[in-house]
Amino acid sequence: MKIYCSKDALLTGVNTVQKAVSNKNTLPVLQGILIKAENNALVFEATDMEIGIRCVVEAQIEEEGMIVLPARLFSEIVRKLPTATIEIEQRNDAVNIHYYESDILLKGFDPEEFPLLPDLYDAVSFNLPISLFKTMIRQTVYACAIEENRPVFTGILLQIEESNIRLIGTDTHRLAYRISEIENPEDLKFYGVIPAKTLSEIYRLLKDDDEVLTIRFNQSQVSFQFGSVHLLSRLIDGQFPNYKQVVPKSCQSKIFLSTKEFSDAVERASLLARDSSHANIIRLSVEKERLWLDQASEIGKISEQLDIQMEGTEVKVAFNAKFLLDVLKVIDCEKIIFELSGPYGPGVIRPVDDPNYLNLVLPVRTS
Amino acid sequence: MKIYCSKDALLTGVNTVQKAVSNKNTLPVLQGILIKAENNALVFEATDMEIGIRCVVEAQIEEEGMIVLPARLFSEIVRKLPTATIEIEQRNDAVNIHYYESDILLKGFDPEEFPLLPDLYDAVSFNLPISLFKTMIRQTVYACAIEENRPVFTGILLQIEESNIRLIGTDTHRLAYRISEIENPEDLKFYGVIPAKTLSEIYRLLKDDDEVLTIRFNQSQVSFQFGSVHLLSRLIDGQFPNYKQVVPKSCQSKIFLSTKEFSDAVERASLLARDSSHANIIRLSVEKERLWLDQASEIGKISEQLDIQMEGTEVKVAFNAKFLLDVLKVIDCEKIIFELSGPYGPGVIRPVDDPNYLNLVLPVRTS
Repeated sequence: MKIYCSKDALLTGVNTVQKAVSNKNTLPVLQGILIKAENNALVFEATDMEIGIRCVVEAQIEEEGMIVLPARLFSEIVRKLPTATIEIEQRNDAVNIHYYESDILLKGFDPEEFPLLPDLYDAVSFNLPISLFKTMIRQTVYACAIEENRPVFTGILLQIEESNIRLIGTDTHRLAYRISEIENPEDLKFYGVIPAKTLSEIYRLLKDDDEVLTIRFNQSQVSFQFGSVHLLSRLIDGQFPNYKQVVPKSCQSKIFLSTKEFSDAVERASLLARDSSHANIIRLSVEKERLWLDQASEIGKISEQLDIQMEGTEVKVAFNAKFLLDVLKVIDCEKIIFELSGPYGPGVIRPVDDPNYLNLVLPVRTS
Repeated sequence: MKIYCSKDALLTGVNTVQKAVSNKNTLPVLQGILIKAENNALVFEATDMEIGIRCVVEAQIEEEGMIVLPARLFSEIVRKLPTATIEIEQRNDAVNIHYYESDILLKGFDPEEFPLLPDLYDAVSFNLPISLFKTMIRQTVYACAIEENRPVFTGILLQIEESNIRLIGTDTHRLAYRISEIENPEDLKFYGVIPAKTLSEIYRLLKDDDEVLTIRFNQSQVSFQFGSVHLLSRLIDGQFPNYKQVVPKSCQSKIFLSTKEFSDAVERASLLARDSSHANIIRLSVEKERLWLDQASEIGKISEQLDIQMEGTEVKVAFNAKFLLDVLKVIDCEKIIFELSGPYGPGVIRPVDDPNYLNLVLPVRTS
């Protein structure tokens, strides 16, 4: 292998694939980035066997070849290189990186040990607009579980049928649901649970000037292609809960209030829960055109009052403050509708201007 | 106590004194901020007994009084308050914070237990221009020792005599020296070792639109006053090394080179030292109009070449890369002079345009 390439192209390559590099010490070659010079382009690949990312950058290829370089050190070197034409030449099990009159010799791993990223070219595929998909990820991914004892809750259900695409995330205490219309002339279908980590990584990598995202999949894997990036991920096995049964069809109280005012008030109230054993619970009381938020601990107490509009009955109910704040952060609308059904019924939060998004949160029972 | 005050004024108060709040659990009241309403102003004070900070902000005082509030919680509450007029009213051992129609009741500590910050008004004092003093701090404070087994090296020597002010920091492996001219009509003198932490805090708090810094001191303490801030610190006991004996009067080799090119090359070279036992040592060779930087480890090797101008003899010498990078970061000049005296003599780095600053660094002996 012998190639000439700009520093920026190298940087794009390592930055794009970096998150797929394994942090674990199982197989040393997985701590590396595969670099492959072929067909007048330089290909970067990394995988931790859960997720794999490939990125193609421009380069002048004088001699084809491939090698696996230690990811962390190679990334740091690339970041520190001067803004100049960089020459990379293979020398046995190492590469020589040349710029100006300086040289770095960096040892690598045998590329034969590096796992191949399969291409799902024969699989069913869709095209999706980028900005829509980024919004959908942002509005659902926070509701997933972190702990892995029930894997299906660490993923997002992606469902495509007829002219609808849905993303749904839940950790069993709350659920985020987003639906959008897409073009689906061939009436293709997809139903699979994608790891939240995969979707967060796609969110990070999608550029606003990317135009089309192509999804391909088979029984156990899904791939996303956009710009010069190709991301492959396993699907999570297991039965995802039936969200249609969970979301209530009606409510007893419906309140309309400012997203920011509510968010600020919940944030302040939750400060007083930090040092106590109250697990960040805040109590809400809705009465006439008023919402009270109350929180007390041994260090003090807070009582916030907000003006609201309301329909239906008065209600007292308690929630985990973090669950409220998580959803208020991803709602871009200035006003929300908060639907309540007594102290034991779920709360449903929606933006007033968009019927395609909702967040359901279960209340906390307080004595 | 009953006062009205803007959110911004409260924020200035807590942000200014926060770093003086004790992190240790010795005396609970020291984890608090003293708030004192008097003479139509609101005074904030915090101290960990090593450093004390006072800050005065505008407020409308309806009733004088004082209380100590838990620093961390009070700071977080202030940060989250709405941009509005805030009312703070004392209620026994607590304060009620009122805004719009909401209230926070926060328990406090007895202000009688809070240590008084002494005023050094009778002490000798100087006036100093702000921007000069900030530069002087930045160019010396990094050379101090972190470990406290020899306290005098964790401080900066501040020396004022005739029309000169000097700051000197050293950890015994390197030394940073900065001198400037000041007006000193009364020919006052000062010689004291100030904790590096104190000077870093002054650097953080000094605003570019502050005009004058007043230094006051006595045998064991020093105070700095600027804008509405008053910072008091103990002085460090002990004999500071005689820097005049340490800095060499001449050198065998004098090289002139680009600050940025040198810094970038040292950074790259030091990457290859990270995972090895080489303690971040880089080897320099000066030969004709060339500087070579070399570093090797089991993962690879680097050889950087830079164009330089030089006077004197050729030389090979090794340095700790971190010590070189620390000084290259604080030199604002595009070119430096690097004076060397063989493999065992100290290196001296100066900006080409300023004879008032130098950094001395001892070489590392390599076999």
